[in-house]
Amino acid sequence: MVLFSSLTPVFIAVICVLIGMILKSTRKSSKKEKSDTKNKPDSRPWVDEDLRDSTDLHVEENVHSPFSQSHYMSVNRMRILCLISATLLLSDFTICYLYAGTSPSGAHTEPWTFVVVHDPEIKHKVREIIEEEEEVNYRKRMGDKWVHDLKRLRTNWIKEYLDTAPYLILIFKQVYGRLPNGKKRTHYYNEISVSIACGILLAALQNVGLVTVTSTPLNCGPRLRVLLHRPANEKLLLLLPVGYPSKDATVPDLTRKPLDDIMVAM
Amino acid sequence: MVLFSSLTPVFIAVICVLIGMILKSTRKSSKKEKSDTKNKPDSRPWVDEDLRDSTDLHVEENVHSPFSQSHYMSVNRMRILCLISATLLLSDFTICYLYAGTSPSGAHTEPWTFVVVHDPEIKHKVREIIEEEEEVNYRKRMGDKWVHDLKRLRTNWIKEYLDTAPYLILIFKQVYGRLPNGKKRTHYYNEISVSIACGILLAALQNVGLVTVTSTPLNCGPRLRVLLHRPANEKLLLLLPVGYPSKDATVPDLTRKPLDDIMVAM
Repeated sequence: MVLFSSLTPVFIAVICVLIGMILKSTRKSSKKEKSDTKNKPDSRPWVDEDLRDSTDLHVEENVHSPFSQSHYMSVNRMRILCLISATLLLSDFTICYLYAGTSPSGAHTEPWTFVVVHDPEIKHKVREIIEEEEEVNYRKRMGDKWVHDLKRLRTNWIKEYLDTAPYLILIFKQVYGRLPNGKKRTHYYNEISVSIACGILLAALQNVGLVTVTSTPLNCGPRLRVLLHRPANEKLLLLLPVGYPSKDATVPDLTRKPLDDIMVAM
Repeated sequence: MVLFSSLTPVFIAVICVLIGMILKSTRKSSKKEKSDTKNKPDSRPWVDEDLRDSTDLHVEENVHSPFSQSHYMSVNRMRILCLISATLLLSDFTICYLYAGTSPSGAHTEPWTFVVVHDPEIKHKVREIIEEEEEVNYRKRMGDKWVHDLKRLRTNWIKEYLDTAPYLILIFKQVYGRLPNGKKRTHYYNEISVSIACGILLAALQNVGLVTVTSTPLNCGPRLRVLLHRPANEKLLLLLPVGYPSKDATVPDLTRKPLDDIMVAM
């Protein structure tokens, strides 16, 4: 382990070059005009019923500060090293497999599918679906309280980053599988299994200078599944736009719960 | 980053000493007699209704091979490095906070509670609850097909490791919170958020020589919540027994899905 780690400076150099090549090559082509979202869609039924409720969503006042790599490194120091060894074998998004693919899963069913999109046309279609649904979410589904609270996080239904991010990774959970004999294969705890895999991937992408944000496009799953030709047993879990931070990027100054609030020893 | 990584050999040495001290000090006291599970509990209603179904759970024949550190290092190489930087600040299970505490969560609600148990009496009570429920699961709830398949994974309702593992980490998801004004605070996507945090913790523990296994004690959540004095808004997500592998430990030789099966590029 010591021997391996002592080589990490070399690996880091390799990573930076590889990641740089991969992303820079797609940066130019990913620029798109912001789509027209003036038209007001009619109200649609909720797809994600489990998220529909009337309780308060409390969001603290967030001060935003300029993004800086050192900020990320200090906050998520341990995550920085996560990418190093995986990228020994990095080739495009093989990283998805290296990270997520080593995760545990219920009965080792590996119930995950990572759809990596960098085709500008497809990214734009993804954006159109999400902005159309999100506008309905903000205007009609979420309610005034939620919309008001989210204003402090500076979010709305305009998602320009879905065009400008070099890559979009859409992670689907396979809620069931198929046996060789055609019967249904139960994927127990598939959401937990895929989320654990996402955590490792997420940490890695963010901390070699790449940035991302965990998004769960409300009510968009079915339409995105059809757009990306995924089968009916797959359900969208997360969408991760991946790229470099823009020069004027800011991040919220989030405080963390103290140890005593999240850990109990006995 | 390079500067930081070049110091990793030193950090590794520090980790090994710290982890060793923490666990060795509790190893002797954690030995317990296997509890008597001869009595056959009556059938009880399902708590985890969402897991109750009649579809097949397919499990491949698994060859078990002797556990070896190199096996772990090769399979999860990138995870080995995960622990290094976190343990710069390691003090007992502060690691739980360092890993899980930097994870993203819906609206930054941080909806997790890590209960770390190394008191032998409490560990034994945890075992009694789980073995009692698991015997009912195996005999009455799960069905012949599932029980038959699981036999190949060599699992049953006897969980001696719950006594012998130096630590048990029970991770609870807070399905909702409270606002300062006493109103309910919605914890959107709390299961996904806590699972992502668990993934980072899990990877770290396993790969500095510590081993663990993700377990989701079926139908045991409510009784364990009461035993550990957790409030009603918390629901058990995972239980991780943590320790060193025994000399005769074996691990299943699991194969992984090929990249083409889990990743789609477009």
